[in-house]
Amino acid sequence: MLKNHRTSTRVLFGDVDAMNIVYYANYLRFFEMGRAELMREAGGPYPELAREGMHLPVTQAQVKYVKPAYYDDELIIETHVDWVKRASCQFGYTIYKTKASEEILSAKGFTAHGCVNMEGKVVPLPEWTRKILKSYTD
Amino acid sequence: MLKNHRTSTRVLFGDVDAMNIVYYANYLRFFEMGRAELMREAGGPYPELAREGMHLPVTQAQVKYVKPAYYDDELIIETHVDWVKRASCQFGYTIYKTKASEEILSAKGFTAHGCVNMEGKVVPLPEWTRKILKSYTD
Amino acid sequence: MLKNHRTSTRVLFGDVDAMNIVYYANYLRFFEMGRAELMREAGGPYPELAREGMHLPVTQAQVKYVKPAYYDDELIIETHVDWVKRASCQFGYTIYKTKASEEILSAKGFTAHGCVNMEGKVVPLPEWTRKILKSYTD
Amino acid sequence: MLKNHRTSTRVLFGDVDAMNIVYYANYLRFFEMGRAELMREAGGPYPELAREGMHLPVTQAQVKYVKPAYYDDELIIETHVDWVKRASCQFGYTIYKTKASEEILSAKGFTAHGCVNMEGKVVPLPEWTRKILKSYTD
Repeated sequence: MLKNHRTSTRVLFGDVDAMNIVYYANYLRFFEMGRAELMREAGGPYPELAREGMHLPVTQAQVKYVKPAYYDDELIIETHVDWVKRASCQFGYTIYKTKASEEILSAKGFTAHGCVNMEGKVVPLPEWTRKILKSYTD
Repeated sequence: MLKNHRTSTRVLFGDVDAMNIVYYANYLRFFEMGRAELMREAGGPYPELAREGMHLPVTQAQVKYVKPAYYDDELIIETHVDWVKRASCQFGYTIYKTKASEEILSAKGFTAHGCVNMEGKVVPLPEWTRKILKSYTD
Repeated sequence: MLKNHRTSTRVLFGDVDAMNIVYYANYLRFFEMGRAELMREAGGPYPELAREGMHLPVTQAQVKYVKPAYYDDELIIETHVDWVKRASCQFGYTIYKTKASEEILSAKGFTAHGCVNMEGKVVPLPEWTRKILKSYTD
Repeated sequence: MLKNHRTSTRVLFGDVDAMNIVYYANYLRFFEMGRAELMREAGGPYPELAREGMHLPVTQAQVKYVKPAYYDDELIIETHVDWVKRASCQFGYTIYKTKASEEILSAKGFTAHGCVNMEGKVVPLPEWTRKILKSYTD
């Protein structure tokens, strides 16, 4: 059973474009918000990794845009972990916009990450990180 | 033979993140820059479409991050057209960072677009747009 | 007595720059968040204005940067209304970063706004908007 | 006589907001572009400072918005130096949008900067930086 983390954000004027819809690049910001809050909730916030000298740069990102979200919409960011390997992992995201009490699918996507040290060399994920992330995959 | 459009941009402080590398969402801004300049060069700038009551919202976007780009790097944005259909099209992008006179691959990706009118209804691409885009596919 | 509205936000990777501090332009995003939430709390959310055919474009903005905020900091955005006139108003903002249970001043600033209709012509603020804003000035 | 540096940029979809005008925070990005290009032109690009262990964080920023700029507008960023002191300086900016061959004032503003070392301690501007900046004040 897939475990999901949910957080929410509100669309700013600065987030939308001339069509009055959320600019497509900003979904990657929402994805970052989702994975950061997932790790915080799980007890291993991302800055903890940086303090241990590691980073999780994005190696691939994909978004499928389903229904546009508009200015002032409240968005739900649902994040889970697709898989965890020795030195890489992948997060999956579903973004809903809320209308009345309904949740309407706005976009889906994923980000794949490698684990690197401060010199940019690939290194294994710390055990605690792997454990946290695994708990969101089953 | 694939025809490519090339334009360039400089990485701002506001474009990089705490790792001192270009924030991953900003590549989608560079992609927008690429396709806008391709259409302008081809004689059919994007605002022309809007004046005819049409838009090309992104339906899917993908980025593969290869080598990070840093603050003040000059980036080359190479854009081509993957395919054009009746009411949709796909652009492909390659981003290089320049070092001395070398070009180093930083990222690759694509954006798929549908053609919609002001009410958001799918409509065929105008003939002139299709023609312009086709000239970048062969 | 000055009435303040308080809301909070978390600093993303995409918000900071190569010095690892919040990029200076992003404070204007936080200011927008502050005034939007103030109006929502007061019962007259900004989109209500747009539905009546009006906008409050910024005519002047100022920020004084006191202490840098870093990645993952939780920020408190404190917003009040400096003054309300017939067709213009000014919001004032104080941004704190929280550390343990302390709040440290990060930046202060203001934004002045004119009220315009959809053609960009200056028009008086609706009575309900003026009333809402006035309640945050005394 | 005030010496001005001029550079230009094109407004992206991602730069405008729901009113179809350039989002107010983005003018601070244009300001950054202006001062970076001024320093590059003058032979002392900003990264040179960083290599010497110094930064010029913004201590104050102000923008007066005169005429909105729209999607796809070409903007001229005119930058000069208001003053240079021992450990601080101020840049002034004027942003024009071009229409036909006319230049229309869009916004004016300034950014004040302190010079700090990597620990955030205030330090004097390097002599070469002071010299470069001074050449844009008279």
